[in-house]
Amino acid sequence: MGSLSDIGLAAGINILSAIGFLLAFAFLRLQPINDRVYFPKWYLKGTRSSPRHSSNVVSKFVNLDCGTYLRFLNWMPAALKMPEPELIRHAGLDSAVYVRIYWLGLKLFVPIAMLGLSVLVPVNWTSETLEKTKALTFNDIDKLSISNVGKGSDRLWAHLTIAYAITFWTFCVLYREYKVVASMRLNFLALEERRPDQFTVMVRNVPPDPDESVSEHVQHFFSVNHRDYLSHQVVYNANKLANIVDKKKSLQNWLVYYENKHARNSEKRPTVKTGFWGLWGKRVDAIDYYKNEIEKLSIEEESERQIIMNDQKAIMPVAFVSFKSRWGAAVCAQTQQSSNPTIWLTDWAPEPRDVYWPNLSIPFFELTIRRLIMAVALFFLTFFFMIPIAFVQSLANIEGIERVAPFLRPLIEKKVVKSFIQGFLPGIVLKIFLILLPTILMTMSKIEGHTSLSGLNRKSAAKYYLFLFVNVFLGSVITGTAFQQLNSFIHQSANTIPETIGESIPMKASFFITFIMVDGWAGIAAEILRLKPLIMFHLKNSFLVKTDQDREQAMDPGSLDFASSEPRIQLYFLLGLVYAVVTPILLPFIIVFFGFSYLVFRHQIINVYNQQYESGAQFWPDVHRRIIIALVVSQILLMGLLSTKHAANSTPLILVLPVLTIWFHIFCKNRFEPAFVKFPLQDAVVKDTLERATEPNLDLRAYLKEAYIHPVFYCEAQSFGSMEEDVEEKNPLVPTKRTSRRGSPSNSKHASELGTHS
Amino acid sequence: MGSLSDIGLAAGINILSAIGFLLAFAFLRLQPINDRVYFPKWYLKGTRSSPRHSSNVVSKFVNLDCGTYLRFLNWMPAALKMPEPELIRHAGLDSAVYVRIYWLGLKLFVPIAMLGLSVLVPVNWTSETLEKTKALTFNDIDKLSISNVGKGSDRLWAHLTIAYAITFWTFCVLYREYKVVASMRLNFLALEERRPDQFTVMVRNVPPDPDESVSEHVQHFFSVNHRDYLSHQVVYNANKLANIVDKKKSLQNWLVYYENKHARNSEKRPTVKTGFWGLWGKRVDAIDYYKNEIEKLSIEEESERQIIMNDQKAIMPVAFVSFKSRWGAAVCAQTQQSSNPTIWLTDWAPEPRDVYWPNLSIPFFELTIRRLIMAVALFFLTFFFMIPIAFVQSLANIEGIERVAPFLRPLIEKKVVKSFIQGFLPGIVLKIFLILLPTILMTMSKIEGHTSLSGLNRKSAAKYYLFLFVNVFLGSVITGTAFQQLNSFIHQSANTIPETIGESIPMKASFFITFIMVDGWAGIAAEILRLKPLIMFHLKNSFLVKTDQDREQAMDPGSLDFASSEPRIQLYFLLGLVYAVVTPILLPFIIVFFGFSYLVFRHQIINVYNQQYESGAQFWPDVHRRIIIALVVSQILLMGLLSTKHAANSTPLILVLPVLTIWFHIFCKNRFEPAFVKFPLQDAVVKDTLERATEPNLDLRAYLKEAYIHPVFYCEAQSFGSMEEDVEEKNPLVPTKRTSRRGSPSNSKHASELGTHS
Repeated sequence: MGSLSDIGLAAGINILSAIGFLLAFAFLRLQPINDRVYFPKWYLKGTRSSPRHSSNVVSKFVNLDCGTYLRFLNWMPAALKMPEPELIRHAGLDSAVYVRIYWLGLKLFVPIAMLGLSVLVPVNWTSETLEKTKALTFNDIDKLSISNVGKGSDRLWAHLTIAYAITFWTFCVLYREYKVVASMRLNFLALEERRPDQFTVMVRNVPPDPDESVSEHVQHFFSVNHRDYLSHQVVYNANKLANIVDKKKSLQNWLVYYENKHARNSEKRPTVKTGFWGLWGKRVDAIDYYKNEIEKLSIEEESERQIIMNDQKAIMPVAFVSFKSRWGAAVCAQTQQSSNPTIWLTDWAPEPRDVYWPNLSIPFFELTIRRLIMAVALFFLTFFFMIPIAFVQSLANIEGIERVAPFLRPLIEKKVVKSFIQGFLPGIVLKIFLILLPTILMTMSKIEGHTSLSGLNRKSAAKYYLFLFVNVFLGSVITGTAFQQLNSFIHQSANTIPETIGESIPMKASFFITFIMVDGWAGIAAEILRLKPLIMFHLKNSFLVKTDQDREQAMDPGSLDFASSEPRIQLYFLLGLVYAVVTPILLPFIIVFFGFSYLVFRHQIINVYNQQYESGAQFWPDVHRRIIIALVVSQILLMGLLSTKHAANSTPLILVLPVLTIWFHIFCKNRFEPAFVKFPLQDAVVKDTLERATEPNLDLRAYLKEAYIHPVFYCEAQSFGSMEEDVEEKNPLVPTKRTSRRGSPSNSKHASELGTHS
Repeated sequence: MGSLSDIGLAAGINILSAIGFLLAFAFLRLQPINDRVYFPKWYLKGTRSSPRHSSNVVSKFVNLDCGTYLRFLNWMPAALKMPEPELIRHAGLDSAVYVRIYWLGLKLFVPIAMLGLSVLVPVNWTSETLEKTKALTFNDIDKLSISNVGKGSDRLWAHLTIAYAITFWTFCVLYREYKVVASMRLNFLALEERRPDQFTVMVRNVPPDPDESVSEHVQHFFSVNHRDYLSHQVVYNANKLANIVDKKKSLQNWLVYYENKHARNSEKRPTVKTGFWGLWGKRVDAIDYYKNEIEKLSIEEESERQIIMNDQKAIMPVAFVSFKSRWGAAVCAQTQQSSNPTIWLTDWAPEPRDVYWPNLSIPFFELTIRRLIMAVALFFLTFFFMIPIAFVQSLANIEGIERVAPFLRPLIEKKVVKSFIQGFLPGIVLKIFLILLPTILMTMSKIEGHTSLSGLNRKSAAKYYLFLFVNVFLGSVITGTAFQQLNSFIHQSANTIPETIGESIPMKASFFITFIMVDGWAGIAAEILRLKPLIMFHLKNSFLVKTDQDREQAMDPGSLDFASSEPRIQLYFLLGLVYAVVTPILLPFIIVFFGFSYLVFRHQIINVYNQQYESGAQFWPDVHRRIIIALVVSQILLMGLLSTKHAANSTPLILVLPVLTIWFHIFCKNRFEPAFVKFPLQDAVVKDTLERATEPNLDLRAYLKEAYIHPVFYCEAQSFGSMEEDVEEKNPLVPTKRTSRRGSPSNSKHASELGTHS
């Protein structure tokens, strides 16, 4: 399977579908009616107002300016135009550093590809081993790969040398990148405005005290042990209240829906069944019913609110403790408080938007049990999920389908269909599995008890990476081969794996090329189209929206889904590094993926995504570590591959590489990682001193008073959306004047470039 | 090899030699002339004076009181009598916790042995599989082991159940012990007197500053960033000076030697050759020569001292920074100072005696390079040291010796000699290798750049444990089997190792029993005899000692050699846990080792050893971790063994055990380890407050002024020995009156019990 023509067909299909998505995007984004779907970020910033205020009725919905259609690709240069410092101000450091991962991929693989294509491809092509031994089946891709080099051939030294070159080039790129990101983070933190989390520490596992309430106990403990103690905020267990509020919100949506329906057709009052999901039960008047229900819930909400405020048991053994200075908070966050290390656990408070409230009250011992259970669950999920994938993949080939459904044979045997099935189906099967997964993994991370959204995202990403590595990478390599070759190595010793994988790696190159095109190229093109938010926006717009504020709430900018997209990028790093020596012809496909993704995601973070929180690129150590893992895996597999090539005297030479790589990792970890987990005292003192000089009369206590209150208590009237606006309104870099587009010259300049109908 | 009679003979030899050592000890320690060798600790404490002041000339040297000989074993109950709190005061926490390791061995293995002997031995014995399959060679030990159980037998469930029981019992014992040791440490730290290291932080990698000296830079940095900054002490590079001082001391010893010689035989002036080691060169008058040399060195020393004091380059980028309070020091030690994590590295200062001065100035990058090189070196040392051991062991069996030296055949073929060779030689061969090793490993740790003696000891112990595990444990199991069996599995895949080892484990039981007797029983008995210090003391006494103070310096109490003895204990834990299920008959031998060692080491730390430093049991996490490693190894090997027994359906059941064990380790690590590496702020505040109340006028600056000065600068007149006395004289718990034995009732009571000639 997987001859060059198959690959060509698959490439054609995928390129066409990618172009289709891009054309659809280019067309849809120019329509004023979709403006809020494709440029929500600018609406949230307040620098873009609806283009639908124009006089012409038709042009409210459809763009009639033909000139803009001719320049339909100009979003691409526009996406690249915004310089990085401005990007950081505009979208936050997390987003800016996230797109640097794609950029890193380009920096890493372009030189490697040039080296591989200019050296290894000629070396492999001219070997002609496969043609001599005609017993084996092979294809054109194999002729370009290391498979074409004979056993014990001296040409393998070329591959070995290239492996060294790749390793050192990767070190070089990774080191520079870590250095740049670390300094970006430190710069970002140093330039940052005053924020509550700079002064605040999260204290967990406050020990119970028979004589004092939690609040008193916290106050006494910290005023004794920390001179800079200022105030604290206890945490209420408001999970039930939050549920009620959510439920009420959804009922209110339905009420609005029926009211709108009634307004349009005032003759007939809408009715609804009271039973499960409105499918059965008594039919009642919908508007009255929902008004009634909302009133009931309001009463319930009020009583729950009273219970929480007055019941001592609703106070959890957790507190946000604030200090008079950043220095005091930095000291408290980094030190151990009590001789019992399971109580008075202090850590930096996540920023208020980043707190994951439901997990705050888990005690220490329960936490360790939960993590054990989740580790075991992850193991089973990772290793026994392979069985269905292998099963479906075995069906999704020509012979499998013919066996299961013999009546399809005439159709399948047609050349085009056959190529389609072989080039397209295995990738699709894999893809469907992968869509289901991130939600499960996020739930598992929540059960593990992490207390910040950024932490949850990082932990889910780690799990997802493990899953992708075992199931997509190893699973595709081993299981696929196992069904292809007669000697299934389920019965082999579990320990000859590096050799077996190394041996089958070259054979799977064409499969992974198809995978890259389906998952990478077409997937990224689908990303920019935002099909789901587009549909949701128009549905909400038709049924729920009455005022401009409603419309603002209906647009869902979403945010970068770090937990599922970062591990997917890592898969491409892994494939690139593994195949760099084995089948360099795969690299151009990966480079196209990285380049295209860089473009698309830069566009998205400028125009669409609105991050829920800002962690200051805290995820970079994870990114770095996973690329290192990919590098080590590639070296071990190369060792296995070369040992099957009887180039055994090269083994010690390759063994040097993983040792060096692990050492490099430890070096980088010591050198840079503290910048991502600790806050140096020197910087804290500098900021404190500066602040004291510029604002000697600052009332810090008032500033911090309401910072860490559970969102449901924030204010009856304020909703989540307006909260985020509040935070942004405090940021003087982004003007909040809604009407004037000229508020911030740089922002509005970009907005006008990106939106063509200005 | 290794039948019951062989074992019996080996046991006899070893028990006899152990008893011989003990009798020699019992005799020698009663002689007044050896009193300073066997009770130096009490002399250093000042609660024991020389028994040689008696009137009778003979009784100065020989004990003539026959009654004491009859009670020659009474050191044993005496060693057990001192209660633990007093032991901690008397010998320090390090020593007290060190003997707890042996006690832990007893607590762990006595119940396991009872269980194993009462359940598994009958199960194994009655299986009679070995007798049925007569093709195999086997011995009596094998009949008591799991080898005697047939393949796929249901009896293996008994072993599985016992494995579970052992695992949970080990958890139970380890958890309780960790808890006790942690609370002992915290108690010890809380009750501790004021010590300079409580207020002091070691700062490394002070960045160079073009405008300021190191001292000014340190002062400015810390007075800005830490409000509690008090003072600091820069570190001079005095390695060369220290060498000169050492050399001078050795020359002085020679001078004294020749002066004594001359005094005894005043007719002839002693002469010496000036060349290499006094072997050749011009013959000169010895006393004049050494006086001359010492004078030259004194001048050199003085000029070097001047150079160091005046040269800016002699100041290393390291400083000991002291704070006004323990709180300030705790904060500084636990926080990051600068945004560049490779400069201004702060850590707790080791106590002054514990500092390893030569390593203080190594820069960050060099440190990582050094660690990489040492890691590679350790790998080669560990894995290629096996070749000589395997070679020598292959010679040290009957056939090997007969092949190399056929003329010895008539001697070897005698039954007693044969048993001796088989039972004794392999152990001895191993032992000789092991004696050479700790020094090499300590040198490697020094190259790695650790800055405290306690750290060096811990790191050397870790290396030594790796070495023992690979070479003694795995090396003996695999290599031995490889030479015994025809199918050498050097050609096997490297990955069937757990099964292969698991399979050969039962066969090596008799070898390890011999090893335990040679290394454990006889070795510990030799430990108490202190042969080397005994000889050295008498040599020095005859040639160098003129005054009582000289005699005090001549006695060398030594200290516990943690770096080499702890890993050796761990080897017994490993053997015990591995064989607990496989060959329970091995356990009684291990229990005897632990019990006997407990007795001997308790005696030694009470009467002999004088610790160089006090780390407050900081080594316990290492001890705990290694027992966990042993437990996991035992579980994996059991899994391998059972899979060769075709009890494959038990594999998942055993797989649960390592997972649980690793989880238990993580749990304990989180729960207890912070108590060993951090100093909680709450405790610091308590001690600070107490001190401020009791000693409001304390001049801390004066107290800390000379605490962290390189020992060679301390004082011209003071030597190391008197420094240690100084430290003890500050401790009010131990009275320093030399003449009155009744100064401290408890101490002198024990002294009089332990010394029989009071």
